[in-house]
Amino acid sequence: MMHLFQRLGVTLPIVQAPMAGVSTPDLAAAVSNVGGLGSIGIGAIDAAGARAMIEATRARTDRAFNVNVFVHQAAQADAAREARWLEAMRPLFVRYGAEPPDALRTIYTSFADDDDMLATLVDTAPAVVSFHFGLPGADRIAALKDAGCLLLATATSLSEARLIVAAGIDAIVAQGWEAGGHRGVFDPAAPDDRLGTMALTRLLATRTGVPIIAAGGIMDGAGIRAALALGASAVQLGTAFIACPESGADDAYRVALAGPAAHHTVMTRAISGRPARCLANRFTEWAEGAQDVPDYPIAYDAEKALHAAARSVGESGFGAQWAGQGAPLHRSLPAGVLLKLLWQEVSLAGGSAI
Amino acid sequence: MMHLFQRLGVTLPIVQAPMAGVSTPDLAAAVSNVGGLGSIGIGAIDAAGARAMIEATRARTDRAFNVNVFVHQAAQADAAREARWLEAMRPLFVRYGAEPPDALRTIYTSFADDDDMLATLVDTAPAVVSFHFGLPGADRIAALKDAGCLLLATATSLSEARLIVAAGIDAIVAQGWEAGGHRGVFDPAAPDDRLGTMALTRLLATRTGVPIIAAGGIMDGAGIRAALALGASAVQLGTAFIACPESGADDAYRVALAGPAAHHTVMTRAISGRPARCLANRFTEWAEGAQDVPDYPIAYDAEKALHAAARSVGESGFGAQWAGQGAPLHRSLPAGVLLKLLWQEVSLAGGSAI
Repeated sequence: MMHLFQRLGVTLPIVQAPMAGVSTPDLAAAVSNVGGLGSIGIGAIDAAGARAMIEATRARTDRAFNVNVFVHQAAQADAAREARWLEAMRPLFVRYGAEPPDALRTIYTSFADDDDMLATLVDTAPAVVSFHFGLPGADRIAALKDAGCLLLATATSLSEARLIVAAGIDAIVAQGWEAGGHRGVFDPAAPDDRLGTMALTRLLATRTGVPIIAAGGIMDGAGIRAALALGASAVQLGTAFIACPESGADDAYRVALAGPAAHHTVMTRAISGRPARCLANRFTEWAEGAQDVPDYPIAYDAEKALHAAARSVGESGFGAQWAGQGAPLHRSLPAGVLLKLLWQEVSLAGGSAI
Repeated sequence: MMHLFQRLGVTLPIVQAPMAGVSTPDLAAAVSNVGGLGSIGIGAIDAAGARAMIEATRARTDRAFNVNVFVHQAAQADAAREARWLEAMRPLFVRYGAEPPDALRTIYTSFADDDDMLATLVDTAPAVVSFHFGLPGADRIAALKDAGCLLLATATSLSEARLIVAAGIDAIVAQGWEAGGHRGVFDPAAPDDRLGTMALTRLLATRTGVPIIAAGGIMDGAGIRAALALGASAVQLGTAFIACPESGADDAYRVALAGPAAHHTVMTRAISGRPARCLANRFTEWAEGAQDVPDYPIAYDAEKALHAAARSVGESGFGAQWAGQGAPLHRSLPAGVLLKLLWQEVSLAGGSAI
């Protein structure tokens, strides 16, 4: 891994996780500028937005950074299911003086189906492109490789990792159960073994021939050393960076993360239609045990509408406040300072821990 | 921790997990004899059985070992619920030419309510006593301390860890989501944050003042080094020892563990009434999404009866084959050899992993 990273001028084996809506160009650039690999997430924006975001990041750093795309199966719209879901949510909307939308939209296009996005990535050629929720077709992978992009993809299991290896991806992000945000499972309808970071990282490090980037519950130098001891070549931290001033997190999110709420995260598919880990809040409480959730990302359209309605009257407990299980260990520091501190913690510990 | 262990003559920071039914005196003694801390589990037997098991272990080693007890809330019998549960299981019994039992029994007594067991432990005074599912009253803790026992207790969360610290227990077993067997949650009816080993170990190592023994998904020297890097003082491995010849695992269990089944574990309360992680098998498939399970350990009486019925006609897919998420990484070696190998893996790696 490190030789891959070094080729890109990335000197520390630390990736700042792409977090659509949170990982701004400022955040990514701050991380890349001190030797880590910053990331932006463009899964929730279109090709023009992605180009602007890539250019904004390049305006802030001349170092390598990672651009993350969502490669989910195309959403299956189901008007009846969506109507039932909105009806179930109606009392929440009414409580905040609003009405649910008449219908729900597929608010994001998968990279698997987005030719404009492919053209934009080939044209802008980010140093690193990462895939979440699955893999695009071989032609898209080849096009990005031809453009010179190093490719990463998320696996939550050995079987997903093997698909990633077979597709010729350069390194695997091993996303453990602890991780915040969207779980990268390829098929959300399949059984999920819910492998923790400890088990998953070691399994993938011993059973695949490619470099592993461990993710999930890693918050400090001790966590980084642990992941490296498990055989990971690098680590990816998301929750650790949410409270950085450069992040896009709003005040309500920062307040929640800094308080007792950080101790309770839940994995829910009720927010977006796919399993994702967030701080437990009023919405996840309402959604507990929810069945028959619309497909990803259709459900997310409803949640975003509800959050907007509630926020407009001062209630912030319906936002999607993604966070991993390590949330109580986060620190609120400028990203560059945090990265240097993380590396100092890794290095100072040195030697054997015993 | 290590000074606590060294006081007992335990030279390696490795605990072989107590696994009622699997961790025999032979297994515990083999581990203790080469410098680890072997364990036996007496939660499923009575005081006379426990005395015999402690004596059998002492006949095999003069080193320290750990005796584990279950400290669950007393089972709440509910004849109507139990009858419904048996009725739901009836087709399974019938398939194997049997009938469900007429009623279910509370097959184990909690250490919290078992005066004979307390007297036996005080009298035999094992070097280490560990608590699972909760803590006994202060008088029992004091009696065991007066008898010279070092005390451990399992925590799955920071709030449980704080109760353990407040009770004056010597060290905490931090049991992550990956871990096999019964999850040590104090209150199975309370929400469970399901913290992975990575997140839980680091949280407890930074937020409690007592030594942490990390458990869950640790299978080899790399895993041990990772746990120590997270700030654990020692580790506890269970699944790593199931396939040892000294363990009580039957052939069906060993076959399942050695094959593809090891890749799929599930956390279910359908087997015993409390959440526990085991290899997915025919019973867990049947029980998926089961509601209204009888209380622990009443449900276990039904499962054991079904397993006996199925096994009597050659079907082994209904046994409780406890295993953690690291199961595919287990090795089938004599326990003493495995322990030496684990320590060699920890030591050889040495220095920094980067």
